[in-house]
Amino acid sequence: MFGVLSVGPIPTHVAFIMDGNRRYAKKYKLDKCDGHRAGFMNLIAVVSYCFEMGVKYVTAYAFSIDNFKRRPDEVKCLMDLMLEKIDELLKEGSTVDRYGVRLLFIGNLSLLPDNVQSAAEKAMKITACHNKAFLLICIAYTSTDEIAHAIELSCKDKIQEVINEDSGHVTDEGKKEKETKGMDEGGDRDSGDSGSTITTVGEQEDTSTGETRAVTVADLERNMYMAVAPGLDVMIRSSGETRLSNFLLWQTWGSPLYAPRALWPELGLLDLVWAVVKYQRSYSYLQKQMKMS
Amino acid sequence: MFGVLSVGPIPTHVAFIMDGNRRYAKKYKLDKCDGHRAGFMNLIAVVSYCFEMGVKYVTAYAFSIDNFKRRPDEVKCLMDLMLEKIDELLKEGSTVDRYGVRLLFIGNLSLLPDNVQSAAEKAMKITACHNKAFLLICIAYTSTDEIAHAIELSCKDKIQEVINEDSGHVTDEGKKEKETKGMDEGGDRDSGDSGSTITTVGEQEDTSTGETRAVTVADLERNMYMAVAPGLDVMIRSSGETRLSNFLLWQTWGSPLYAPRALWPELGLLDLVWAVVKYQRSYSYLQKQMKMS
Repeated sequence: MFGVLSVGPIPTHVAFIMDGNRRYAKKYKLDKCDGHRAGFMNLIAVVSYCFEMGVKYVTAYAFSIDNFKRRPDEVKCLMDLMLEKIDELLKEGSTVDRYGVRLLFIGNLSLLPDNVQSAAEKAMKITACHNKAFLLICIAYTSTDEIAHAIELSCKDKIQEVINEDSGHVTDEGKKEKETKGMDEGGDRDSGDSGSTITTVGEQEDTSTGETRAVTVADLERNMYMAVAPGLDVMIRSSGETRLSNFLLWQTWGSPLYAPRALWPELGLLDLVWAVVKYQRSYSYLQKQMKMS
Repeated sequence: MFGVLSVGPIPTHVAFIMDGNRRYAKKYKLDKCDGHRAGFMNLIAVVSYCFEMGVKYVTAYAFSIDNFKRRPDEVKCLMDLMLEKIDELLKEGSTVDRYGVRLLFIGNLSLLPDNVQSAAEKAMKITACHNKAFLLICIAYTSTDEIAHAIELSCKDKIQEVINEDSGHVTDEGKKEKETKGMDEGGDRDSGDSGSTITTVGEQEDTSTGETRAVTVADLERNMYMAVAPGLDVMIRSSGETRLSNFLLWQTWGSPLYAPRALWPELGLLDLVWAVVKYQRSYSYLQKQMKMS
């Protein structure tokens, strides 16, 4: 089956909204927590199919910032599951081991309980030298929070720029920005090519519109949590729902959304193959469109 | 038919990605421009159905910033069509007149040719006192540009806040917003509850995460072009495609996307009714979910 698929283009980056764990639990009269457990187990299976197929980046929406509002016992169960599954993923013979997967936890990790945060950081450290495949687990994540965070980092970049340019005489704007910002948790984002042209200190030309802006679209892109991965090719949400639920809004701007009917724990290889076939059709249509225009 | 629908909840705000005009032209061996003309005509029909059904806000993606990259003759044809249709919409007996529609042009209008920009501004002025229904036409729009623009305005707010504080003036949020937002074409942004708490000058607590940020999610929301309309309920993209193509990414975070197969000029009342029925089903599911959690 993978041979047939590989005749067409294989998506580089696939993302999943794992919807339907609770409905699965209800359907089989299970505890909510067991629904989530079944969901986690299926994630490992689906991720393996993806890597087997040649997909290099898989992103999964494991826990939204809004999920903290769920009942404390459900949140606790999810956090415990997270700890257990991170531990399993680091064992010999696991998917991570077999496919040489680098694990990346994406989101506002400081919102997590200390033990989950430490486990996530440890897993990222241990797998940091893997580069055959990438599994991005979005946890304590929402897209609007990611954008607000990217703004914070972009503003910091600008302030640094102003300081570097005018080391004794900080301009009014820079000074002001310095005073109003700088409380961010920080990080080690790649601050390479910004895709924009510097016009005056702290201002750049936005390449999409040609306008001068303090923070450009390229700045934001560089500072997104998801900047570690290439653009998204396919978004898949289980259980037939077609909402994005504040997940990868910025990154989904040009990629199709597929919504197979299966509840997440029941999503299988065929659903995945079907999504890739649809992607291949859409890909060839887009190529044609580009030639037409 | 509308009677049956009105038993369930009617969406307040529906948005359309009008995809398939060029394929329609190809299918019927028409000039590309005639495909777009058929598309504009169908927009008026679809908008009328929506208002008839009780939808209060309709948003249409008429022209993306990326569309400026199309062939000059196609861009010119679209701009000429825009002028012609704006003119028609302002005539007596038009949809605007019949339903008491306020026209709002959403996007980076400064990128448009002068005559289209003037026509859009004139139409907004003439219909400014209408309040029965709202038609938002996104033109020279992309979602990433909207976000970059909202950041710009949010930063201006913060700078003004610091200036006010530094010069010994008591911070007056209302005054500040008035001073910094004079350039906005909408004119009447809702500057009510910001959903965030001011902690120190220029810093606010982001209510979604409890963190202190210079620019919060609530600041961005207040400064979006689309802040003139309530949250989106349904996104409909014609021609079966499920991509958002950089349209209302921020606003689509929780609303479903429907993708009927019809090319835009052929999208009819039944497609619309079907989308509303699906919305009603999804609505009742979401209500149940809220009760469950």
